[in-house]
Amino acid sequence: MLIHTIQELRTEINKWKKDGLTIGLVPTMGALHNGHLSLIKKAKSTCDKVVVSDFVNPIQFGPSEDFDKYPRTLEEDVKLCDGEGVDIVFAPSSDEMYGKGQRLSNDTLTYVCPPFFYVNKLCGKTRTGHFDGVCTVVLKLFNIVQPNYAFFGQKDAQQVIIIKKMVNDLNVPIEIIQCPIVREDTGLALSSRNKYLSETGKQDALVLSKILNNIKTCYNKGITDVEALKETAYSFLTDKHDMEYLEIVDKDTLEDKIKADDNSIALIACRVENVRLIDNIYLKESN
Amino acid sequence: MLIHTIQELRTEINKWKKDGLTIGLVPTMGALHNGHLSLIKKAKSTCDKVVVSDFVNPIQFGPSEDFDKYPRTLEEDVKLCDGEGVDIVFAPSSDEMYGKGQRLSNDTLTYVCPPFFYVNKLCGKTRTGHFDGVCTVVLKLFNIVQPNYAFFGQKDAQQVIIIKKMVNDLNVPIEIIQCPIVREDTGLALSSRNKYLSETGKQDALVLSKILNNIKTCYNKGITDVEALKETAYSFLTDKHDMEYLEIVDKDTLEDKIKADDNSIALIACRVENVRLIDNIYLKESN
Repeated sequence: MLIHTIQELRTEINKWKKDGLTIGLVPTMGALHNGHLSLIKKAKSTCDKVVVSDFVNPIQFGPSEDFDKYPRTLEEDVKLCDGEGVDIVFAPSSDEMYGKGQRLSNDTLTYVCPPFFYVNKLCGKTRTGHFDGVCTVVLKLFNIVQPNYAFFGQKDAQQVIIIKKMVNDLNVPIEIIQCPIVREDTGLALSSRNKYLSETGKQDALVLSKILNNIKTCYNKGITDVEALKETAYSFLTDKHDMEYLEIVDKDTLEDKIKADDNSIALIACRVENVRLIDNIYLKESN
Repeated sequence: MLIHTIQELRTEINKWKKDGLTIGLVPTMGALHNGHLSLIKKAKSTCDKVVVSDFVNPIQFGPSEDFDKYPRTLEEDVKLCDGEGVDIVFAPSSDEMYGKGQRLSNDTLTYVCPPFFYVNKLCGKTRTGHFDGVCTVVLKLFNIVQPNYAFFGQKDAQQVIIIKKMVNDLNVPIEIIQCPIVREDTGLALSSRNKYLSETGKQDALVLSKILNNIKTCYNKGITDVEALKETAYSFLTDKHDMEYLEIVDKDTLEDKIKADDNSIALIACRVENVRLIDNIYLKESN
């Protein structure tokens, strides 16, 4: 069922709640790919009812970012969701989410602001206000859907860590389930932004996963010095790659490391054909 | 029943939820007086079950404010609540609310930040970060108790307006009920901070309600110019009064007015014996 308004959604949710059914929420910005579908499958296997939200959230985009051209494919998304047995696709307008004609700024709206320590690094360094926008819309969706579980992909590793921190700090009565990154056979992590890439660009983009895999291999061969591990990236890079960051930090707290350990995660952000791509990998085999 | 831990509270709440009972929350910082009791009575008459939270929230006090000496009277509070038929008094420690040994700052905790427009005026002007701390703890309590209704006093008018805005902006599924100011026969608005005042101080403090009542009288006699209405205050003030602000604004949006109207509220903050006191009044008779 495709629903556009909060009120209509709440009516359905309340029926489920009365029947004691468990609810799973998969928050997305649409442009669904197999990564999203893996979240949906996990939700279907965990909960009685599954809601997929499909909303390109304006307040998590910076003024120079790709909000306007972000891919919007609602019709296809709904078909994919139907195929997976999703109960409700919730696709509100911006007016529905933020109020009609509401100016979207810290001057006029209540924001959820994650801790500076988690925000002022990695993607947050260049995307000022991004995680405030993410946490705000996610908490709104949590309050609208009131799910028992919410499902997020490890692809946006910093985002999941920040959302888990928000849930803990604000006592949100919802369990966050993180699902593994889904990749093409080539190793490229699935992303809605891959649509912006040419075929050559897709080839150049493989460098992200190659760098991460190589770091993991080196770590498992006994190299633990973070600077040394990061330096292994240089041999992969060409003038097609505009590197934003490559970091190795604690996978739960995002704390910097001097020596990598089994709790470490390597994260990379790099532009290819001016498309900003991110990827990450846990250094320990079983992670 | 007196409960100190979130887990124990949630166990009780879940029983009520299963039975389909409605829940009312009265958030307080303890040191209960008849103002609080009026909120509790309203909650009792509205809901099946009533929870009173009793927690002096460290993150809403500035470094030079009265957090350490704020009156703490839990034993008496519990007796008063028992007398009103309150079902649960929830009195957590700071560790229970914010995590053991957690440093309390924007660097380490997720905050709820109300809009600058609502915050950078009246009490927020001198109490930097105060309303961030209020909204954060109130949202935490909302998520812990999951009430149908929450009750707040008009005494903290700016606070209620900001909490209503938060509930609207973040789609919190809770109805906010505002209750009238309770006053001593002298006109002094009840406040836990009145305990700091000497008998002479209490006399001097009457000036707050006198100024507000006089403004209301003048407005109802036809004076609408805000500057003129504010100037009527001067004749009441002596060197015992250290005025912080006197403003006339819209009672729902806190927007400034040039001409007062029936939607206006007059608000005052003034120190007496170095105790910061606040009060307010709706200009329209029936408000």
